[in-house]
Amino acid sequence: MKLVTAIIKPFTLDDVKSSLEQLGVLGMTVSEVQGYGRQKGHTEVYRGAEYSVDFVPKIKIEVVIDDNQVDKVLEAVVEAARTGKIGDGKVWVTSVDTVVRVRTGERGSDAL
Amino acid sequence: MKLVTAIIKPFTLDDVKSSLEQLGVLGMTVSEVQGYGRQKGHTEVYRGAEYSVDFVPKIKIEVVIDDNQVDKVLEAVVEAARTGKIGDGKVWVTSVDTVVRVRTGERGSDAL
Amino acid sequence: MKLVTAIIKPFTLDDVKSSLEQLGVLGMTVSEVQGYGRQKGHTEVYRGAEYSVDFVPKIKIEVVIDDNQVDKVLEAVVEAARTGKIGDGKVWVTSVDTVVRVRTGERGSDAL
Ligand SMILES: Nc1ncnc2c1ncn2[C@@H]1O[C@H](COP(=O)(O)OP(=O)(O)OP(=O)(O)O)[C@@H](O)[C@H]1O
Ligand SMILES: Nc1ncnc2c1ncn2[C@@H]1O[C@H](COP(=O)(O)OP(=O)(O)OP(=O)(O)O)[C@@H](O)[C@H]1O
Ligand SMILES: Nc1ncnc2c1ncn2[C@@H]1O[C@H](COP(=O)(O)OP(=O)(O)OP(=O)(O)O)[C@@H](O)[C@H]1O
Ligand SMILES: [Mg+2]
Ligand SMILES: [Mg+2]
Ligand SMILES: [Mg+2]
Repeated sequence: MKLVTAIIKPFTLDDVKSSLEQLGVLGMTVSEVQGYGRQKGHTEVYRGAEYSVDFVPKIKIEVVIDDNQVDKVLEAVVEAARTGKIGDGKVWVTSVDTVVRVRTGERGSDAL
Repeated sequence: MKLVTAIIKPFTLDDVKSSLEQLGVLGMTVSEVQGYGRQKGHTEVYRGAEYSVDFVPKIKIEVVIDDNQVDKVLEAVVEAARTGKIGDGKVWVTSVDTVVRVRTGERGSDAL
Repeated sequence: MKLVTAIIKPFTLDDVKSSLEQLGVLGMTVSEVQGYGRQKGHTEVYRGAEYSVDFVPKIKIEVVIDDNQVDKVLEAVVEAARTGKIGDGKVWVTSVDTVVRVRTGERGSDAL
């Protein structure tokens, strides 16, 4: 299994979530983070305001999936999160050894 | 070493923490996240209120441990976090290359 | 590529960020977390107040970098985050399979 971590613009969350649901992704974890990208000193727009400061509010999505879903999930996230402007986001993939569903104790793909 | 990430119901945090301490786990990192599980459209109860919305407040615990502690830690988390109701939580394990204690510069198991 | 996760004292963030920039690190993600270290029952100082409670406010930094930057990044974070007092922080490194820049779809080192 793999963990896909996506840092995206907050207003794209609903679209990213819908796209993942359409792929059959059954769970995800979301948190608020502050992002810092390559454009030091440049500006990004958030809720109509320009941010020239270093850090910009972003949303982090974490989703554990089966290996064979990685390509489709990356494609879906990138498509739903892209606006074409700087600061659109970064996604990374890491390997997961084990997953457990707490309620049932199930492990592996069955626990997703 | 391994990183165990657990997404649990907030009110189980104290029990999970106590269980980990009893295993000799010496440090952990906790944050507030929003969770989304398999029950799209179903409800979960949080602080007495039913949530029919997609996202439910959850707690994320991250704990870096030695490989030989993984089984015991998973067991402890699952037992302490389980209520038997949907939304009890998800736990995943990933591999850690290196750990450093900032104060001393120690690395590896000694840094835990 | 590697993901370096650092849990540090909040007031060291600016120094850690500057040190990383000087190494040419082009992006990072920051969030607020609660930390729990080896000193159960001991105290840590935060904004002039002593915390004898278990959890202390910490900052989490996540930065995805090329393999050949790991040593320098660890050194820079440890040097900038160290005060010599307990609770200075913990840093861990995990392996990253893939990185994608959302705006361009670039992958791998080019996406950093
Ligand atoms: N190397 C990195 N490690 C961890 N997080 C990163 C990294 N680079 C970017 N991020 C996170 O992703 C967010 C979005 O990055 P961003 O889209 O600005 O990347 P970028 O490479 O600067 O691309 P662009 O040129 O399109 O702005 C950042 O605000 C930060 O939270
Ligand atoms: N695939 C996943 N990737 C990342 N986080 C997940 C995933 N599945 C669940 N989570 C997180 O774990 C939390 C708890 O999930 P939950 O216990 O509802 O899992 P479930 O598989 O739906 O099990 P149950 O049937 O017992 O509800 C979710 O709210 C979400 O934060
Ligand atoms: N094993 C661990 N897993 C996950 N996070 C940890 C772990 N140990 C510590 N942390 C996080 O790192 C923060 C800083 O830890 P801390 O510097 O107190 O480590 P320590 O080993 O107790 O070192 P010191 O003796 O210098 O206090 C903690 O508050 C917690 O957020
Ligand atoms: Mg950018
Ligand atoms: Mg569920
Ligand atoms: Mg400590």
